[in-house]
Amino acid sequence: MARYVIEVFERELSGYKIVRHTVPGIKDIPAAARRIIDLGCDGVITLGWVGPGQVDKYSYLASSIGLVMLGVMTGKVIVDVTVHEDEAEKPEDLKRIAVHRAKAHAENLVAMLKGGLQALTPKAGMGVRQGYPDVGPIG
Amino acid sequence: MARYVIEVFERELSGYKIVRHTVPGIKDIPAAARRIIDLGCDGVITLGWVGPGQVDKYSYLASSIGLVMLGVMTGKVIVDVTVHEDEAEKPEDLKRIAVHRAKAHAENLVAMLKGGLQALTPKAGMGVRQGYPDVGPIG
Amino acid sequence: MARYVIEVFERELSGYKIVRHTVPGIKDIPAAARRIIDLGCDGVITLGWVGPGQVDKYSYLASSIGLVMLGVMTGKVIVDVTVHEDEAEKPEDLKRIAVHRAKAHAENLVAMLKGGLQALTPKAGMGVRQGYPDVGPIG
Amino acid sequence: MARYVIEVFERELSGYKIVRHTVPGIKDIPAAARRIIDLGCDGVITLGWVGPGQVDKYSYLASSIGLVMLGVMTGKVIVDVTVHEDEAEKPEDLKRIAVHRAKAHAENLVAMLKGGLQALTPKAGMGVRQGYPDVGPIG
Amino acid sequence: MARYVIEVFERELSGYKIVRHTVPGIKDIPAAARRIIDLGCDGVITLGWVGPGQVDKYSYLASSIGLVMLGVMTGKVIVDVTVHEDEAEKPEDLKRIAVHRAKAHAENLVAMLKGGLQALTPKAGMGVRQGYPDVGPIG
Repeated sequence: MARYVIEVFERELSGYKIVRHTVPGIKDIPAAARRIIDLGCDGVITLGWVGPGQVDKYSYLASSIGLVMLGVMTGKVIVDVTVHEDEAEKPEDLKRIAVHRAKAHAENLVAMLKGGLQALTPKAGMGVRQGYPDVGPIG
Repeated sequence: MARYVIEVFERELSGYKIVRHTVPGIKDIPAAARRIIDLGCDGVITLGWVGPGQVDKYSYLASSIGLVMLGVMTGKVIVDVTVHEDEAEKPEDLKRIAVHRAKAHAENLVAMLKGGLQALTPKAGMGVRQGYPDVGPIG
Repeated sequence: MARYVIEVFERELSGYKIVRHTVPGIKDIPAAARRIIDLGCDGVITLGWVGPGQVDKYSYLASSIGLVMLGVMTGKVIVDVTVHEDEAEKPEDLKRIAVHRAKAHAENLVAMLKGGLQALTPKAGMGVRQGYPDVGPIG
Repeated sequence: MARYVIEVFERELSGYKIVRHTVPGIKDIPAAARRIIDLGCDGVITLGWVGPGQVDKYSYLASSIGLVMLGVMTGKVIVDVTVHEDEAEKPEDLKRIAVHRAKAHAENLVAMLKGGLQALTPKAGMGVRQGYPDVGPIG
Repeated sequence: MARYVIEVFERELSGYKIVRHTVPGIKDIPAAARRIIDLGCDGVITLGWVGPGQVDKYSYLASSIGLVMLGVMTGKVIVDVTVHEDEAEKPEDLKRIAVHRAKAHAENLVAMLKGGLQALTPKAGMGVRQGYPDVGPIG
């Protein structure tokens, strides 16, 4: 997934320095994001892979709470890309979801860094999905 | 949903400046609320849409914990409007819930900003619901 | 529920000032408790009503974590009274539970404020319940 | 349960002052532990009783998160003794579990206070259980 | 499990001082990790054993949230090794998982301490598992 994110950043964030950091598992992501922020980065995108079991989901929850709290404590833009192994049965479907979601959220991060608070406002309520087809607005 | 909230604010909060901020997903809301508070806002209303799956509910939980902790850390009035895709089957019902809830909570926020600690006291225990018909007081 | 709490406070906490604050939903309670503490109050009692659905329970969990963290951060006495709509089928039973629990915890708060760390020690392990008949000690 | 803990402390922690504090419910424990730490105590043991329902388990989770965070924030030794009403059907079994667990953890706390970081290392991986028979090491 | 971790550290982290700390249960781990960090350690590996019941899983969740928050608060590298009793039926399988996972994560910690942010990048997305056979990359 990282490759697709880096492609987006290199194309759209010229002048920015990209820092990559890899950790063993999903629960290591929030501390890693903190280290990235301590380096002075303006934003963080996290890429996580979550297994299908109940314990995996609790790990996802703990990791999510950590990232949310890091955002609350710092106010930084932290975009969280997670793919759950049980989102699809076939590996090729999972991969397609992962690639699409990673690219879409990389673009969201770019937009927020460059465009500020309302950069994503035109998409609000439009049923935009990452990893799946958009569902469109309601009603 | 934002449109209905802004209508309420523009009608009832003259003299206030309204700041809008859009983020990709529900877990991005707490950090965004922190950024809004850092801009000096007196209150925040958050609008979130949650899918029907178990993972969506964990994301809702993580986001809720983040918002609650932001409130605990700052003491700010943060009103959280969330619509769950599984609250209704028909899109038109979902939309009606969303609009009603957004408006009702926008009015709650207005009341708290203008009326202080007891602005909502007349409604306490009256079975007032947002997004559904009121159920009335008990007993 | 607030009425019964205020009755207990007025009878047993003469000389104290009672501050009441109403918020729209259960997740708004922790920030409200923070505001109450910031006003200089010695203790807080919170009154919450929780629906029967799974999402309501997650909201209860998020709210509980917020209140617990507020207690951890401040060391203040915060007594949490929550009634769950699925504790009883009949409205009159729910009301009886709510009134009994609110009164009992108001008295607990009074005891802790006036009697210090061991004010409730005589009740420890005695199977005292709030909202239900006491179950007595074990063994 | 407190009686058995106090017996262990009085026998093995001569020279220490024991402070006891009773609170209404399990969610009140983390703030109470904070108050105990603020008094200058070197360690805390908490005794909690949890009901069998799902809401009781969420309250257990909120309380546990609070205690864990208090430990993270202070680095203090906080040993958490919890008995769940659904661990056994017969009151005498529940009582036996509670007494055994309280005593065993009181001794764990004593060992950590007197023996430092590695006081419990001889027990690591030995399948020691509190409230149940030890299961022994694996393999 | 600790023995295998220490073997890896002694072989690959010459010049480092290893500090070991044992606590009674999984919820005691986050505060223990905080104490280890306060001693000046560069990294922490935690070894936990989790029972099969729902309450055990909630304890796992509380412990995980504590560790994640410690990482968020300090930015330290904290690698969390947990074995769940219900991962396998036979004790010998459980032991094999535990030993493999402990060794693999000890090596991950070593790599992160010695190699920095990108030490584990070659393994990213390669389907590396700890305690189970690697599953390989997707697609």
